[in-house]
Amino acid sequence: MKNLLNNIDEVLLMGPGPSCVPMEVYRALSCSTLGHMDYYFIKIMDEIKNLLKELMRTKNRLTLPVSGTGSAGMETCFVNLIERDDPVLILINGVFGKRMEDIAVRLGAKVDTLEFEWGTPVMTDQVAEKLSGSSYKIVAVVHAETSTGVRNPVDAIGQIVRESGALYLVDTVTSLGGIAVETDGWGVDALYSGTQKCLSCPPGLSPVTFSDRAVQIIRERRVKVPNWYLDMNMVIQYWEGAKRVYHHTAPINMLYGLYQALLLIFDEGVEKVFERHQAAHNRLVAGLEAMGLEMLVSPEYRLPMLNSVKVPDGVDEAAVRSKLRDEHLIEIGAGLGPLVGKIWRIGLMGHTARIGNVDRLLGALKAVLL
Amino acid sequence: MKNLLNNIDEVLLMGPGPSCVPMEVYRALSCSTLGHMDYYFIKIMDEIKNLLKELMRTKNRLTLPVSGTGSAGMETCFVNLIERDDPVLILINGVFGKRMEDIAVRLGAKVDTLEFEWGTPVMTDQVAEKLSGSSYKIVAVVHAETSTGVRNPVDAIGQIVRESGALYLVDTVTSLGGIAVETDGWGVDALYSGTQKCLSCPPGLSPVTFSDRAVQIIRERRVKVPNWYLDMNMVIQYWEGAKRVYHHTAPINMLYGLYQALLLIFDEGVEKVFERHQAAHNRLVAGLEAMGLEMLVSPEYRLPMLNSVKVPDGVDEAAVRSKLRDEHLIEIGAGLGPLVGKIWRIGLMGHTARIGNVDRLLGALKAVLL
Repeated sequence: MKNLLNNIDEVLLMGPGPSCVPMEVYRALSCSTLGHMDYYFIKIMDEIKNLLKELMRTKNRLTLPVSGTGSAGMETCFVNLIERDDPVLILINGVFGKRMEDIAVRLGAKVDTLEFEWGTPVMTDQVAEKLSGSSYKIVAVVHAETSTGVRNPVDAIGQIVRESGALYLVDTVTSLGGIAVETDGWGVDALYSGTQKCLSCPPGLSPVTFSDRAVQIIRERRVKVPNWYLDMNMVIQYWEGAKRVYHHTAPINMLYGLYQALLLIFDEGVEKVFERHQAAHNRLVAGLEAMGLEMLVSPEYRLPMLNSVKVPDGVDEAAVRSKLRDEHLIEIGAGLGPLVGKIWRIGLMGHTARIGNVDRLLGALKAVLL
Repeated sequence: MKNLLNNIDEVLLMGPGPSCVPMEVYRALSCSTLGHMDYYFIKIMDEIKNLLKELMRTKNRLTLPVSGTGSAGMETCFVNLIERDDPVLILINGVFGKRMEDIAVRLGAKVDTLEFEWGTPVMTDQVAEKLSGSSYKIVAVVHAETSTGVRNPVDAIGQIVRESGALYLVDTVTSLGGIAVETDGWGVDALYSGTQKCLSCPPGLSPVTFSDRAVQIIRERRVKVPNWYLDMNMVIQYWEGAKRVYHHTAPINMLYGLYQALLLIFDEGVEKVFERHQAAHNRLVAGLEAMGLEMLVSPEYRLPMLNSVKVPDGVDEAAVRSKLRDEHLIEIGAGLGPLVGKIWRIGLMGHTARIGNVDRLLGALKAVLL
């Protein structure tokens, strides 16, 4: 039979994720599969937990990659913590805040929201006002809004949430590995990420971490977690302890990939990785502005790894993306929701975040636009 | 940093899955990652759907791999079909039937069960009796019980379920790709599998299929599916249609692996693959019995790909498994639930199901036991 894999283009992935994958991670994916209860595989699992804790800056014992993509991590955090009629506040300024709302509503929570214009950050004073006098079980926010390129002030929000007594739930799908994530420092109780952004591993896993306080709440639920696959009370028994209990068969080779991706980050040095993201971002913004293009987000709230660029009047944004893909083998992303047709999203995530890639894109964009 | 991946043993995987992975599938896993909205990746998705339909023997439009391991497929089938207080009957003769019960209860169904001794099959006359006069929305059963090695009479059960008007939900995690699965022929409405058994792709994906009748029921639910990640109403919009709608980022490289694994099965010929499983099984049973060992399951209900062998009196079954792993680089499985310590589970799944592997195991077992 014809095999489509023989003709896959090597595309420079500069969209909103997946990002480019280093050769070492590709190699890791094809290491010999071990059994999910094999003692040597369990060693690798232990290392993954340790490396994740270090990158997430947390001492949380319950830190592990969930067997699904980033959205499964979001689902995990909500489904383990929410019980019917729990009051939950979601701070929304993009697609992923909206997705949180959708998930929490489906789980029967009493969901309240605070919405901000897409492309602008969550305003801490409005959060403080909303929380004064109210009592929520969970307050949730996205650190790096992949749909807009906005960095939300998660540290400041964390202080307000902590004072209110609520659990603090943060999405770091796009930020982890690209900018500092301070799980313990921000007082976060539940946090999830994804492998296909700044970790530069293909999509398929979602690292999560829960504070001891969150673990206690999950343990003492009135009813069982209404999601067997993602029930942390059971998953943890496979990921921890002297005697591991089989829950579901872990995605072995994807975990090899994540392990290798984490090793690469620590081998390079976490701070250096962050600097590389920032330098690539600076180069990109300077280049785009020199071409007369305009960024969506104000400089102080811009993410280095996700750059939203306004589509100039009269330009067919989809045609530009097609040309970049077909003629230059570069992928960039489209806008979502109210920003469809209005922005491009240029990702500088993980392995992709390099000056050479930025220059290649700028050259290609010039060729296509001018 | 020290890299544990450099010292992974090449283990002959003869446990209950994962099975050995062919070189072509390892290579597929490390093909260049494409974006999840890339037109060429969508071509590969379409081929995966076509190949799955052919292997599952179904015309169901809603046929695709869910982004999680086999248990996520189980969760998908139940969470999409069950609404609170729905009457559900689960036929149980092993771990995976019990797991179905756990999932259905968590989702708020009124769960009734019919249990059979582990190691024996579901009895169709008892099913018929149970269904006469009762009215269930769903009747669920496991085709190949991985915990015991029993093949349940899913065809005969299907006839009874169809007459009752209930939806028929079948687990084919361990059977698909090793013995015939006749989705449409058996009148199945929801079916799931896993990649790490007879498909010989690493764990991480769960192929599922839903009949048009099941799709209609999912579309007309009173309340939204209480699981955003696995909501088929949304997932299908990414997997089908002229214009694909982003839901979550698909596990790109795992999907390459599944595609390649399916191509290998069709290149070899589905019937030949089934014969290879049966031949390996026959050789194994003959060899084990020649050594004086005894099978758990009666010949007429034995699965070729999962062989439960009774541990002889006085033998430390865990020590045998350790020696096989450490001295012979072979993994076999332990018993589960009431069969802990009483059986070994020897898998002959997919790429593993070869005479040479059987002979290697038999030789090693002799060395360890005698």
